[in-house]
Amino acid sequence: MKKKLTIGLFGFGVVGQGLYNVLSQTQGVKAEIKRIVIKDKTKTRSLPSELFTTNKEDVLNDPSIDIVVELINDHVAAFDIVKEAVTRGKHVVTANKRMLAENLEEIYSLQQQYGKSILYEGSVCGSIPIIRNLEEYYDNDLLTSIEGIFNGSTNYILTKVFEEKKSYADALVKAQELGFAETDPALDVEGYDPKFKLVIAIAHTFGVFVQPHQVINIGIDKISETDLKYAKENNLSIKLVARAFKQGTKVFGFVAPQFIEQHHPLASIRNEYNAVLVEGAFAEKQTFVGKGAGSYPTGSAVLSDVSALTYGYCYEYKKRLQHEPLTFSNDLLVEAVVSFEKEIPITIHDFEKFKSGYAANSKQLLCGLVSLEKLKTWSALPGVSVVLAPNAEFKVSVREKTSVLEVA
Amino acid sequence: MKKKLTIGLFGFGVVGQGLYNVLSQTQGVKAEIKRIVIKDKTKTRSLPSELFTTNKEDVLNDPSIDIVVELINDHVAAFDIVKEAVTRGKHVVTANKRMLAENLEEIYSLQQQYGKSILYEGSVCGSIPIIRNLEEYYDNDLLTSIEGIFNGSTNYILTKVFEEKKSYADALVKAQELGFAETDPALDVEGYDPKFKLVIAIAHTFGVFVQPHQVINIGIDKISETDLKYAKENNLSIKLVARAFKQGTKVFGFVAPQFIEQHHPLASIRNEYNAVLVEGAFAEKQTFVGKGAGSYPTGSAVLSDVSALTYGYCYEYKKRLQHEPLTFSNDLLVEAVVSFEKEIPITIHDFEKFKSGYAANSKQLLCGLVSLEKLKTWSALPGVSVVLAPNAEFKVSVREKTSVLEVA
Repeated sequence: MKKKLTIGLFGFGVVGQGLYNVLSQTQGVKAEIKRIVIKDKTKTRSLPSELFTTNKEDVLNDPSIDIVVELINDHVAAFDIVKEAVTRGKHVVTANKRMLAENLEEIYSLQQQYGKSILYEGSVCGSIPIIRNLEEYYDNDLLTSIEGIFNGSTNYILTKVFEEKKSYADALVKAQELGFAETDPALDVEGYDPKFKLVIAIAHTFGVFVQPHQVINIGIDKISETDLKYAKENNLSIKLVARAFKQGTKVFGFVAPQFIEQHHPLASIRNEYNAVLVEGAFAEKQTFVGKGAGSYPTGSAVLSDVSALTYGYCYEYKKRLQHEPLTFSNDLLVEAVVSFEKEIPITIHDFEKFKSGYAANSKQLLCGLVSLEKLKTWSALPGVSVVLAPNAEFKVSVREKTSVLEVA
Repeated sequence: MKKKLTIGLFGFGVVGQGLYNVLSQTQGVKAEIKRIVIKDKTKTRSLPSELFTTNKEDVLNDPSIDIVVELINDHVAAFDIVKEAVTRGKHVVTANKRMLAENLEEIYSLQQQYGKSILYEGSVCGSIPIIRNLEEYYDNDLLTSIEGIFNGSTNYILTKVFEEKKSYADALVKAQELGFAETDPALDVEGYDPKFKLVIAIAHTFGVFVQPHQVINIGIDKISETDLKYAKENNLSIKLVARAFKQGTKVFGFVAPQFIEQHHPLASIRNEYNAVLVEGAFAEKQTFVGKGAGSYPTGSAVLSDVSALTYGYCYEYKKRLQHEPLTFSNDLLVEAVVSFEKEIPITIHDFEKFKSGYAANSKQLLCGLVSLEKLKTWSALPGVSVVLAPNAEFKVSVREKTSVLEVA
């Protein structure tokens, strides 16, 4: 039986306001916001001032409040709020991907220990119900991979660059104006934001907890004119792809830009839209597409979590119980296109399997199978750009004992 | 707490066999098939013969069986099995869209009356978890429309006709060989199969029960050379689209072929894939893509229902409680392209708003806003083809009192 729930809200930015509006318009969910904790009490607000407080105890110490909805920017403060709320017997709904990604194992333990729910559908791809579907619908499918466009602002930028021939800088400014980009654009363009989401998705797809710093992210900030020319000549676009897949007892996962062919399911995902492709032994290929950011799409996901709490829902992290234990690994060979200034000492001998290359003017472009770690190192060098090949091949690399001996 | 469930299965065709394989490979779901009721005991089976019986009482009368999974072709016999099973205290999982569509209100009442679940995720778009998401995830969103490609075999045929320039007849034969087409191809090509699915989707999107015969379906069986030429000249494809939407307190729904522009989300849905586009006030536009038919995709949906029963899941038909009562209506003006032999007496005066037209050789083609009922009548005439316009306009038609007076 559903009971009426009382919410204490932390943060009143676009998502918080979206939630407030959504809650006041829908008749289906029995929940109301009693108090809103904000940082700056001097700001003019659209709601009665008695709703607002700057003292978090007004929420945490109020026994009539069942749910803490945490929607603040600061990921460190957010985790404190989550911990405090759960230990004081409140359920939590949050969309803070960075906080979740960095503390997911503890978030899991907190729920077990205190018997309270921490739900976070809004943290991964906004309105796309991916966590819920991984938990509930694909709970018995033997999932083999998850991949997609997990960041709306970089996808918006790439769409503008490819379709409207906008410059990269102009497209970024426009994305920020529209509110798609994070306050710190590096989180988007360097691939941290999709990485946080990938870490969360990996837990619910494969039952593996991995720390964000273990997961390699290569951004779109260094995409070069050479890449754009290569894309144009081969009728390709570029998307920033987050992916994870299972091979044997290992799980691989990383974020990197990739050349995408015209018929690929991700090719048609434009502007601020996100997409998630799930592949399982039985359901085969599934695609979910929806808005990844914005006040209403994320507000809608948060609302859906609140609604789920009215019937006592909690994540069960079912995949943890189903597999033989899986371990996360970066020992992978990846087919990539690397373009760079000629003077940079990257050669075909750096590739495990060299496929093709060309040089023109001061630029060189090499394509082949290369270790993920090496790609990460290269992508950090000035004047080097790394983009995965279209339909890239991935190969688990076996670290030979012989090569260890050689080093010794 | 999950308990181990015992299943009695009716039917052992492709989906039944898929389910059996899926159940024996996955470790997550605590359920086993105890008995399989078949029609023909002389057929050679891949499993031990003691599993099979031709006597339905062996399942219905066995108190150790918790769930009846009904996967037979005959929709009348299927409904009898469902009723018997529920009245004898068993939950039911079925994928029989026709049986469901024709009896949905009674299926709803049976569940209320006997406190048993009847789940049917596999009935609508195979592996796409659309019912579950409409029930659980979008339970509080104010949904405004649902549309998509609900039939894999016609989509396969249309893909082959458009991309590989196959003839319509060849493409149909190929679809049947691959097992995508229903035994009676008229159910697919005349749009009955997607209509049954639409009827089920309408109940879970808008909380409205409608009889299949009330819903207009126009098939792809009469698509003409003129249509194909029109599509080619305007860089369009044709898809068979099922759609329903809400305007005020009315719900409209119908199935019809439609010209689709290159950038439309349905344009990239190829071969046997299905797609569902959901639009809500808060989640905005969501797309779900997956295989709509086949042994494993449907088996996976059935399995997910079985798994949901291990924690006592039932549909709540929540949208019935949220809206002001909605009524189903066909009083709609639809923008369509009608092509026909010149001697057929269709004129621009038949259109509420005429937009464009041309005549060539013995053919005529007219485009404009016309009543849905008239389109249905025309589509039944030999030599007439009806295809909705790209990005078709829809307008609720107000039946004027004056026109009633004129008739009188």
